[in-house]
Amino acid sequence: MKFIRKILNSRSTQGGDFFLELTNILGFKPREIRYYKKAFTHRSMNRKDAKGNSVNYERLEFLGDAMLSSIISHFLFNEVPSGDEGYLTKMRSKVVSREHLNELGKDLRLLDFVESKINKDNFGDNIHGNVFEALVGAIYLDRGYEFCQRFIESRVIEPYVDIEQLEGKIISYKSLIIEYCQKEKKSFLFDVFEDDGNDDQKHFGVKLFIDKKLVAKGRATSKKKAEESAARRAYYALQSKIDRVL
Amino acid sequence: MKFIRKILNSRSTQGGDFFLELTNILGFKPREIRYYKKAFTHRSMNRKDAKGNSVNYERLEFLGDAMLSSIISHFLFNEVPSGDEGYLTKMRSKVVSREHLNELGKDLRLLDFVESKINKDNFGDNIHGNVFEALVGAIYLDRGYEFCQRFIESRVIEPYVDIEQLEGKIISYKSLIIEYCQKEKKSFLFDVFEDDGNDDQKHFGVKLFIDKKLVAKGRATSKKKAEESAARRAYYALQSKIDRVL
Repeated sequence: MKFIRKILNSRSTQGGDFFLELTNILGFKPREIRYYKKAFTHRSMNRKDAKGNSVNYERLEFLGDAMLSSIISHFLFNEVPSGDEGYLTKMRSKVVSREHLNELGKDLRLLDFVESKINKDNFGDNIHGNVFEALVGAIYLDRGYEFCQRFIESRVIEPYVDIEQLEGKIISYKSLIIEYCQKEKKSFLFDVFEDDGNDDQKHFGVKLFIDKKLVAKGRATSKKKAEESAARRAYYALQSKIDRVL
Repeated sequence: MKFIRKILNSRSTQGGDFFLELTNILGFKPREIRYYKKAFTHRSMNRKDAKGNSVNYERLEFLGDAMLSSIISHFLFNEVPSGDEGYLTKMRSKVVSREHLNELGKDLRLLDFVESKINKDNFGDNIHGNVFEALVGAIYLDRGYEFCQRFIESRVIEPYVDIEQLEGKIISYKSLIIEYCQKEKKSFLFDVFEDDGNDDQKHFGVKLFIDKKLVAKGRATSKKKAEESAARRAYYALQSKIDRVL
C-alpha cells in the first residue's frame, strides 16, 4: 500500500497524497485516477501503453483546451447578451490567454504534481497553463461535460473572470477605491495578512478599511489579488456613491 | 393559427411547416423553437429584442462553432489514440473546415429556412456553414451538450468524417475499387438512380456491381457521395482481397 502510494505520489515533497491533494484542488473526488495521472505525466517520462501509444498530458491538453473554450464561450454568450460575435471571440481569447492559463496553473500549484525526467526549473512558463488544460481534459473524461463546466465556473470564471476588467473599462478596483478616497478625503487601509486556513496552499487575506471602518475582505493566493478582491467587493458595496464621484 | 404558421414558415416555397421540416432535419423534436428561429434569422432582418439586443444567428454561430469544435475534438481523441496533439489539431481543422461546413449546410438545405431581406442569391458560400454552426448552437441551448454531441455524431461524423480519407491515405474509395477491378480484370458498374424515398430532400441511390454481382449500395444527397458511400462499403467488404492486390 505504501508502495502504491509512493507511485501515485509525485507531490511527495509536500508530504501529501496524490488522491487527497487532487481532491482538495478539484473540490470533488476523482473517479478514474488514471486520467489525472496522465494529465500530470510529462513526455520526458517516455511512457507508453500496451499498444505503444504515448502516455503523457499532451493529448489531454488538446481535449481540455477545446472544452475550456466551449465552456467559456457559453458563459460569455449568457453573460453579455449585447456582445456580437467579434466581441465574444475577443473576450474569449482574453479569458483563455496563455498568460491567464499559466496564472491559473501556478495558483493551483499543478507543477508540483507533474512527473518528469527533466528538472522542473527548466520548464518554461507555459507548462502551468498546459497542465491546467490537461487537467480540464481529465475532468471532462472522468465526469462529463456538465461537471467539467461547473468546475470551470467555480475555479476559473468565478475567481478570475471579470468582464469589466477584461474589457479594459476597469483596470484595477484598487485604483478606483484609492481615487474615490482621495477625492472624498477619506482615509483607507489595505490590511494584508497571511492566511493559510486549512489549505495546503499559501493564501493572503486582506481587510479594507475606509475611514477606519471595515468595508470589505478579500482572500487569494497573492497579495495583489487579495487586495483586488477586497477592492472589488468594496466597489460593489459602495457603487452608487463611487459612481457619483468618479 | 394559419397566421402563426406563416410567421414561422420561411421555407414556404416548399410548402412545408417550419417545425415539421426542422424536426425532419434534426431527427428530434425541438423544444424551444425560439432558438431555431434565431438560428435562421439573418442580420438584414434587423430584429431586436425588448432590451435592444440584436436577434440574428451570429451569436449562435459563435456558440455552435465552439461546441462543434469540442465535440469533434473528443471524437478524434477517442478515434485516433496514436495521434499526438499536432495531429489532432490538424485533423480537427480539416473536419470543421469552412468548405466542409458549407457542404453540410448545403446538404441540409438550411438556406431555405433563412429569413433575410437580402436576396439569398447574393449570399456567398459561407452562409451555409455559418447557419449550420448557428443551428448547432441552437441545439446545444435547446437540449444540452450530450444531445448536441449525438446530433453531431449522427449528422456530421458518421456520414462525413472518414479518418483515412482526411489523412489523405485514401483519396477516394471509388478510385480504389476501380483500380482493384482493373488489376483483377473484373467488370464494375456504379448504377445510379434518383431515390427520393420519403424525404423532403433529393437523394441518389447507387448500386455497385462487380462482375455483375451486387456488392454494395449507397445513398446520399449527391451522385458523387452516393458512389463514394457504396465504394467505401464495398472496400470494407472486400478489404482483405483488395489489400492483397493494391
